[in-house]
Amino acid sequence: MKEALFIDYYELTMANAYYHSPLRDTTAYFDYFFRTIPDGGGYVIFAGLGDCLDYLKNLSFSADDIEFLKAKKIFSDDFLNYLAGFHFTGDVYAVSEGTVVFPGEPLVTIRANIIEAQIIETYLLMTLNHQSRIATKASRITLATGKSDAVMEFGARRCHGFDAGINGAKAAYIGGCMGSSLTACDKMHQVPALGTMAHSFVQAFSSEYDAFLAYAKTYPDNVVLLIDTYNSLTSGIKNAIKLYHNYLKPNKLKLKGVRIDSGDLVYLSKKIRHLLDAEGLTDTAIIVSNSLDEYLITSLIQQGAQIDSYGVGERLITAKSDPVLDGVYKLCALEEDNKIIPKIKLSNTLAKTTTPGFKQIYRFYDTNQMAIADLITLDDETIPLTGYTLFDPLEPWKQKQITNYSVKKLTQLVMKNGKQIIKNLPLPVIKDFVKAELKTLWDEVKRFANPHKYYVDLSQKLWDLKQKLITNDQNKS
Amino acid sequence: MKEALFIDYYELTMANAYYHSPLRDTTAYFDYFFRTIPDGGGYVIFAGLGDCLDYLKNLSFSADDIEFLKAKKIFSDDFLNYLAGFHFTGDVYAVSEGTVVFPGEPLVTIRANIIEAQIIETYLLMTLNHQSRIATKASRITLATGKSDAVMEFGARRCHGFDAGINGAKAAYIGGCMGSSLTACDKMHQVPALGTMAHSFVQAFSSEYDAFLAYAKTYPDNVVLLIDTYNSLTSGIKNAIKLYHNYLKPNKLKLKGVRIDSGDLVYLSKKIRHLLDAEGLTDTAIIVSNSLDEYLITSLIQQGAQIDSYGVGERLITAKSDPVLDGVYKLCALEEDNKIIPKIKLSNTLAKTTTPGFKQIYRFYDTNQMAIADLITLDDETIPLTGYTLFDPLEPWKQKQITNYSVKKLTQLVMKNGKQIIKNLPLPVIKDFVKAELKTLWDEVKRFANPHKYYVDLSQKLWDLKQKLITNDQNKS
Repeated sequence: MKEALFIDYYELTMANAYYHSPLRDTTAYFDYFFRTIPDGGGYVIFAGLGDCLDYLKNLSFSADDIEFLKAKKIFSDDFLNYLAGFHFTGDVYAVSEGTVVFPGEPLVTIRANIIEAQIIETYLLMTLNHQSRIATKASRITLATGKSDAVMEFGARRCHGFDAGINGAKAAYIGGCMGSSLTACDKMHQVPALGTMAHSFVQAFSSEYDAFLAYAKTYPDNVVLLIDTYNSLTSGIKNAIKLYHNYLKPNKLKLKGVRIDSGDLVYLSKKIRHLLDAEGLTDTAIIVSNSLDEYLITSLIQQGAQIDSYGVGERLITAKSDPVLDGVYKLCALEEDNKIIPKIKLSNTLAKTTTPGFKQIYRFYDTNQMAIADLITLDDETIPLTGYTLFDPLEPWKQKQITNYSVKKLTQLVMKNGKQIIKNLPLPVIKDFVKAELKTLWDEVKRFANPHKYYVDLSQKLWDLKQKLITNDQNKS
Repeated sequence: MKEALFIDYYELTMANAYYHSPLRDTTAYFDYFFRTIPDGGGYVIFAGLGDCLDYLKNLSFSADDIEFLKAKKIFSDDFLNYLAGFHFTGDVYAVSEGTVVFPGEPLVTIRANIIEAQIIETYLLMTLNHQSRIATKASRITLATGKSDAVMEFGARRCHGFDAGINGAKAAYIGGCMGSSLTACDKMHQVPALGTMAHSFVQAFSSEYDAFLAYAKTYPDNVVLLIDTYNSLTSGIKNAIKLYHNYLKPNKLKLKGVRIDSGDLVYLSKKIRHLLDAEGLTDTAIIVSNSLDEYLITSLIQQGAQIDSYGVGERLITAKSDPVLDGVYKLCALEEDNKIIPKIKLSNTLAKTTTPGFKQIYRFYDTNQMAIADLITLDDETIPLTGYTLFDPLEPWKQKQITNYSVKKLTQLVMKNGKQIIKNLPLPVIKDFVKAELKTLWDEVKRFANPHKYYVDLSQKLWDLKQKLITNDQNKS
């Protein structure tokens, strides 16, 4: 597989050192979680799990890979033989792809031999960080439009490589986009390919009208014209309307849409809507593009822009305003004599100290199916259905009694001994799930400016364990 | 090839429409150029050309690709047959990979059949934008350290996909990094793989000291210890020094380095340098990581931090502060009856209006081999060596007479009729070239805050042509 050595070198140096240490056969637990919601937002859409499970099922090292590592002269032959026969044989617990998730939640927990668990870190982090980031951005941009399916992902030319384009378009689709400009993503993942013409097409013909006519003759059922090559108002829209009268109407064809890619989109869209309506072209859509994101779209709508759909490029596919989800992968426990020994990573700030132990996540809903809070517990805890006292793990005096709720367990076993036991969901199913998930969040959590902080609390038992380990490990050092 | 349909859908709809129009056999010229230097910087490092040429040599469509497109029911069978036999047969003019370049310069010019030239747009833009962006970021971060080879690229876990990691690490290497954490990039491109241990390694052992000892026993020649898992000062550095006395010194081994990944890097590095020096460990390197970039590194150095090298992650591999180079690919001419007919794309702002015609770039140097200015000319112009009057294309009354200069032509024919005629340079050669290129720029152009704007001017002949077309095309509409 192409990804085999998509591994930070230190995973391999550690793996080789584990192999030659008493830890060699130890079972370890690692959590994937993030600390900060990008863009100062209120939620993250969890994405990339399916690709991670595919990776885990297929990871193996070729003779070439082993040869390459051997030439480094720091890995033992025994370890290299081990790698040559490597397969992932561990367990994976995870929340469903498309779930709305929050900082500090163990979204994926790997239970595996410590060497296996270490080696897979880089690919898992990259995939979950990237796809969750783009899905989240796409959902924000879609929310800004106030509609479903009004955003087209147009960023391939500005993304950071082949997978950034393909997996970015995929993540954008589940986050809410109606499709992507990228043809390969349609072929590979059935994300609808979209697009009609660029400025070069209009320039290449001897006149704008000739370009429009050539396009309409080739694609009579999809006449969407880019009207800003020369001037949207004095040239583009006039030629579009001329085409309608001279060619489309006589042939019973529709002017499906016009696209504006520059200029003042508020002013131009209003003017153009007016001109189209005056010709009876009330069904002709106005499509805009040009460095859009959730903030600009919000502003356009507030100003009364007359826009039907949005082509969004670099600011979506790179999540330009904040391109990184800061997900990490931290050791949280080891097994010794079939007992789980929780582990902690301290930090000067409590918020950066990891939460130890093998954990799971529960979500509380009110009677209207709106999410109230999430609770992280140890694996062997159950949640009473009659009443519960939540408290803030950083400020435990902040408490909240809840009654009249339902509870859903978010984490589930998706892979057992290296065998996937819950199938990857088809993209349209994940996309619908994202829509449903977003409906369970209050608008206050979803807004862009200073969103309400959704509660993610620890159970009393887990909180006590964490405090104990903090004290122990501080004394140890 | 995996990239075959890494093509924006509209390239294909346009291609099919060209195919059925009188433009079908037309030769077109397209320029790749960018408009803005990211991060408000003074220069860009041009990268990604080698990968583009490989793409052009190999691009073809499989039976699968054709089948997929056929199912869209908008492409004619004739056009699909054409695609099935597609090979790029055009010419490519480009500046050398690693050149320092500036806004508005035609860095790559494609001269090809209009369908071929259109189809390759998406991949070229993505590759050049991405790799130039990361190479530029890496060069800025390297400049900030004030040394060569003090930056390690550690970003794989936060990049946007497989190629974002591999090609990002490659671009970071030519931009100035000493190597990358990403093992695959070493195997594929001989970019040195770097890294030793993570926090999980330290946590997994029963004590920090045991972890350090296990590591030193496995890698006696590369003892670099991560010292901040519990507490850098009260635990990590103490255990590192204890290891030196108890194990390394008796075995005539070196404590090669210690790494700090959290906390106040100025305070900690000074304290740790002092503690190491007090033990005679003056050669032990201090390595830091944790959300670094050129701004933070500048600040650390100004505060007197004692740092030997820097592991730089997400802020380099995603160019987080400004992740996009805004390169575009614009039609600049068509051939009719073997004559070049220049084409222009107008805009309300003159700075966004394209520069028409088949062009080349010259660079003027003073007698100390410092770059003075670049000049864009039409292809058939020559530069007198006795004296030249440069003028600003946007404010033409700003003029500058120069004498005593040398001139270098930056653009060269690298591919003719689809055959590459200038070989891709090995990465270390490009890396050295970048170093040499940066030496030709004044510090004022390279600084991070409000850099001096390097002159990029148009020849009189080209400027006159542009004005003529602006007037013509405005009247046309």
